[in-house]
Amino acid sequence: MSDSRFQGKVAVIGAGLVGCLAAIALAKRGYDVTVLEYRQDPRLQSTTDRNLRSINLAISARGIDSLKYVDPELCQRLLHDVVPMKGRMIHDLDGRQKELLYGINGEHINSLSRATLNNDMLDELDTLENITVCFEYKLTNIDWSETKQVCNFTNDKPSKSFDFIVGADGCFSTTREQMKRGVRMDYKQEYIDCCYIELYLPPGKNGQFQLTKNNLHIWPRGKFMLIALPNSDGSFTVTFFAPWKQVDDLMISETKVKQFLLENFPDAMDIMGIDSTVQEFINNPKGPLMCVECNPYSMSNGSGILLGDAAHSMVPFYGQGMNCGFEDVRVLMELLDKYKGDRQVAFNTYTDTRFKDLVAINQLARENYKVMSEKVTSKWFNLYKRIDEAFSTLLGNKWLTMYTMISFRSNISYSDAVRRDNRQHNIIKWLSISGLVTTTLTAFLYTMNSRITE
Amino acid sequence: MSDSRFQGKVAVIGAGLVGCLAAIALAKRGYDVTVLEYRQDPRLQSTTDRNLRSINLAISARGIDSLKYVDPELCQRLLHDVVPMKGRMIHDLDGRQKELLYGINGEHINSLSRATLNNDMLDELDTLENITVCFEYKLTNIDWSETKQVCNFTNDKPSKSFDFIVGADGCFSTTREQMKRGVRMDYKQEYIDCCYIELYLPPGKNGQFQLTKNNLHIWPRGKFMLIALPNSDGSFTVTFFAPWKQVDDLMISETKVKQFLLENFPDAMDIMGIDSTVQEFINNPKGPLMCVECNPYSMSNGSGILLGDAAHSMVPFYGQGMNCGFEDVRVLMELLDKYKGDRQVAFNTYTDTRFKDLVAINQLARENYKVMSEKVTSKWFNLYKRIDEAFSTLLGNKWLTMYTMISFRSNISYSDAVRRDNRQHNIIKWLSISGLVTTTLTAFLYTMNSRITE
Repeated sequence: MSDSRFQGKVAVIGAGLVGCLAAIALAKRGYDVTVLEYRQDPRLQSTTDRNLRSINLAISARGIDSLKYVDPELCQRLLHDVVPMKGRMIHDLDGRQKELLYGINGEHINSLSRATLNNDMLDELDTLENITVCFEYKLTNIDWSETKQVCNFTNDKPSKSFDFIVGADGCFSTTREQMKRGVRMDYKQEYIDCCYIELYLPPGKNGQFQLTKNNLHIWPRGKFMLIALPNSDGSFTVTFFAPWKQVDDLMISETKVKQFLLENFPDAMDIMGIDSTVQEFINNPKGPLMCVECNPYSMSNGSGILLGDAAHSMVPFYGQGMNCGFEDVRVLMELLDKYKGDRQVAFNTYTDTRFKDLVAINQLARENYKVMSEKVTSKWFNLYKRIDEAFSTLLGNKWLTMYTMISFRSNISYSDAVRRDNRQHNIIKWLSISGLVTTTLTAFLYTMNSRITE
Repeated sequence: MSDSRFQGKVAVIGAGLVGCLAAIALAKRGYDVTVLEYRQDPRLQSTTDRNLRSINLAISARGIDSLKYVDPELCQRLLHDVVPMKGRMIHDLDGRQKELLYGINGEHINSLSRATLNNDMLDELDTLENITVCFEYKLTNIDWSETKQVCNFTNDKPSKSFDFIVGADGCFSTTREQMKRGVRMDYKQEYIDCCYIELYLPPGKNGQFQLTKNNLHIWPRGKFMLIALPNSDGSFTVTFFAPWKQVDDLMISETKVKQFLLENFPDAMDIMGIDSTVQEFINNPKGPLMCVECNPYSMSNGSGILLGDAAHSMVPFYGQGMNCGFEDVRVLMELLDKYKGDRQVAFNTYTDTRFKDLVAINQLARENYKVMSEKVTSKWFNLYKRIDEAFSTLLGNKWLTMYTMISFRSNISYSDAVRRDNRQHNIIKWLSISGLVTTTLTAFLYTMNSRITE
């Protein structure tokens, strides 16, 4: 695919998942790519060090199709070790379990480890000739100009200059802060009142899964919840979510934590082990959850652009953070191809067309906390889900549930999915009301008729 | 007022208007204050250098009362040279002028020069023993801790440590960016699609004012406008506001600018001089207008707090930016006094109580662009204004116009002003509708009666 229209030196800031994919996609087009990462090479760390801030990943259609778009074989190599999850498994207080399938045709999302995926992608970068990866390069600032963008780093690392910069440096992006100095960027960051703590459910004897393997497990408890995603080694990465005040109140004593966990998640504690879980609960980092939105995503002259969390950090409740970031890469590459490497046009069109989708998924992700932690246990929610799925079964592709459109249909944009779901929702509402009216009217007429004939 | 409860070293970042007032107020309580400003001392600059980015100030009740609160004599000294403006003077396309008074009792806001006020306040800082002012100290980052906050600067300036930090470093506040690293801060910045260009109307022969002295002059033209505020030397500081695209389109040629100005502001060009104004229009900086909101305003342990534009940059259309910043200082000092110097409680209470007011004025300021550039020429607006003022005349303090509450009543908070105005607005609407219904009904009954008696 290498092409003279795609010549030039590009810096990709951040060697996370989105940064790696962007680097590969750009290198395949012919750009000379340098990836700059402020941390040290994660592959040099001990494999037993869990980073405890991961919130396991679930890759679905948008992520997979974007990987395939960049390199079908790479996609296969990267996803050899995923664990399919075909539905949510809801655990009630008495330990009863109930499965809610994600799709009506057995569609599934796929659990995988962020660390493994990231390391595999870094290995991939090493195989590509026109990619250089520099670790321990912490960006301090960028001198923007029409022609050369000079990146400066901490610790007397030498400055480097590039034709353009791709910022994939996460929700606290330095690239974004530097772009704010050169473009009138609207920007919003908002924390939701939710803290997360990563916990761990080890494999059983002989490495078997201690919960059903092919599910995303949820212990929905209203304002707080526990979730567990399977890893290929038989363990589960477990995450606890709750309002900050609740966590702060619990942290007063071990006894309180223990009592709380035993009361609310007795079946989970049985297999996780209450004592080790209490210690993890107390000692593991308490993570905040932040939403980020900005506009535009790029410098107006095409000298820089933001992808992934740097542009649209979202809360993890729709499992779309990485999927959306990978989709960013696909959308941007399609525009670069369409406009024959004209970055100014491609980048500006990217903001113009992508903003509404990124706002839509950011909002959906926020709303889905209530779905996971509360609504999944509601009779109304489950009734609505059944009606919604019945229509989908009847009408095929003309009626798709929101979850299906978001997670299993990469050809439907996030904003289109919201629009279609709103329409479907209105139809169900209208049918329910007319059903109710018809029933009431029939009953009324029947009563009247009885009286008249009496 | 010096008191052992107010001991400690405080850094005030920024020697602008709000930083200076905060420094004086803190010093008077007994704190050891260091003001750190990244620019050089403005008093060393030539007085003929206008900075061309000022948008003249109008000080009104909240600003004046806050100055008085800090030091009544200081207030008198600082405001000796203001020019009272008792109303807007609207200029139509034919050069006709119409005055719209600000208050029904001759209340006025006061035009003054930002540069003069700032220099006078800096002179004041020099007279206070426990204030040190350091110019050319550009903050790079702050190391926060429970006890000492270490400020680091560019150009190998020595680091300095403080008990707490007051960030008054404007809309692009570095203090705020550093606080984001230590506190979960919601933050929003949004540019409005409006560019401003500062222009100049010199004094006439013998230094007389070439427009009525005691007015804020407006040439409202819908999407764009020109305004002029009097200076005590007989000149006016003139500002042009318009959407960016319009300015970009005009900037293509001198001829276009000239034609545009002559067509839209013929009377202003007569006295400003078309040729010099065209040159200023083309060469002067084009300023953006940004709104900033954040929450909380402080570090949770009381180690830092944001005041003025650093916390709530607003567009200039309600003339409240500085007034609100000065009020910040008063509100914070009242809380520090109330809680006997307990910064943690005082700062957290500040966010809890002040946020709704700062959001309210930020929103009002945005909405007032339409009022100034368009609504002032509308018959409905002027009819409503007369009804509103009639009620105020009848009911005294029980009914105050929004403008009066915001600009002339510092005892009514911004959010209360909005609440009261909404209620009044609903009453007027309700009375109008019932008036209309009564009239229609009377007319209908009269017609019916005529027909029956015919």
